[in-house]
Amino acid sequence: MQLHGYFRSSASYRVRIALNLKGLQTHHLSHHLRKGEQRAPGYLALNPQGLVPTLIDDGGNVLTQSLAIIEWLDETHPQPPLLPRDPLERARVRAFALAIACDIHPIQNLKILERLRQLQLTGDQVTEWAAWVNREGLVACEGLIADRAGPFCFGASPGLADLCLVPQLANARRFGVRVEEFPRLTAADAAARSLKAFSDAAPERQIDAE
Amino acid sequence: MQLHGYFRSSASYRVRIALNLKGLQTHHLSHHLRKGEQRAPGYLALNPQGLVPTLIDDGGNVLTQSLAIIEWLDETHPQPPLLPRDPLERARVRAFALAIACDIHPIQNLKILERLRQLQLTGDQVTEWAAWVNREGLVACEGLIADRAGPFCFGASPGLADLCLVPQLANARRFGVRVEEFPRLTAADAAARSLKAFSDAAPERQIDAE
Repeated sequence: MQLHGYFRSSASYRVRIALNLKGLQTHHLSHHLRKGEQRAPGYLALNPQGLVPTLIDDGGNVLTQSLAIIEWLDETHPQPPLLPRDPLERARVRAFALAIACDIHPIQNLKILERLRQLQLTGDQVTEWAAWVNREGLVACEGLIADRAGPFCFGASPGLADLCLVPQLANARRFGVRVEEFPRLTAADAAARSLKAFSDAAPERQIDAE
Repeated sequence: MQLHGYFRSSASYRVRIALNLKGLQTHHLSHHLRKGEQRAPGYLALNPQGLVPTLIDDGGNVLTQSLAIIEWLDETHPQPPLLPRDPLERARVRAFALAIACDIHPIQNLKILERLRQLQLTGDQVTEWAAWVNREGLVACEGLIADRAGPFCFGASPGLADLCLVPQLANARRFGVRVEEFPRLTAADAAARSLKAFSDAAPERQIDAE
């Protein structure tokens, strides 16, 4: 399999963790987002959104959108599971993942922050925007798992929720959010990052890291 | 079941369509987003994100995030299916849904547009922002299904992709996007809206419509 990604992309980071948890090897191809390489015609033919990641499976099939890729990985390589079996529990885990993947991440990604700069917002205003999005979203995420047993977001095993949380908390820290405000999230984050599947997927451990 | 929603919320609209396709009746509770009712403490206890929709099942269990609710509906009420059976096809449908639910909808919702106004953007700049997000996202969505057979987004039956598309195209029109630029999307939209499950879920048909 081939994973088109970028070391600092949160969505690529999620998929790297999922691949590691499943014990799957992939060839990594980097697209430098700040240089706009994700908008090259050859890449757009694979991924019309011009976003990373894109996964190419062993049959040459093209998969896009990190959560769709991760659900596919879980369906085609069921062990270890990334979602619980019970439908209600699955819904809770997916809701947590979507609270990050829909309501935090896309509103503070590179494209949006660049657009805000084009609208003449100052650097401080842009950073404040990103911090606001992260903080407000993480307050809600803390609430979603406040009464759940740890050490991970949803119990004894890492899964879809954790592989969304860890990259997002890394972003939040980068934008100056005081993440100690979120004891349940930071505990799950620490538990997850102590695992090799997570630490090997970290941005600074990637071949394209700067 | 109870659905907490708002007539004009795209995410509520998606869930209303899914419930209708499944033939499920629910009691609808409206939270007026422009009046901030979704941030009332009683509602935040159900949905820490302060977003609609929230579904309460017959056992009193609380479900949030429209796509998580829809996947749960599909797992607990399998007929008619909203996702194909084949894992690769499921991934394609989910990717299309996520291209809307992550990369268009949350970037042009009421909360974000209000924040842009607070940053002193003019009304025209805010509308232009929303139109840009919709247009750019829909260009990619058109590409994702360009070579797929119709009449719906992914073939002969309506499903998860269609119930994300119809509400988003309604938004795009409202923000002045020339949707005729997207022949494949508008054909799927027309096919879907000709069905009672979709037309009954339309904002203007809801009891809280203004």
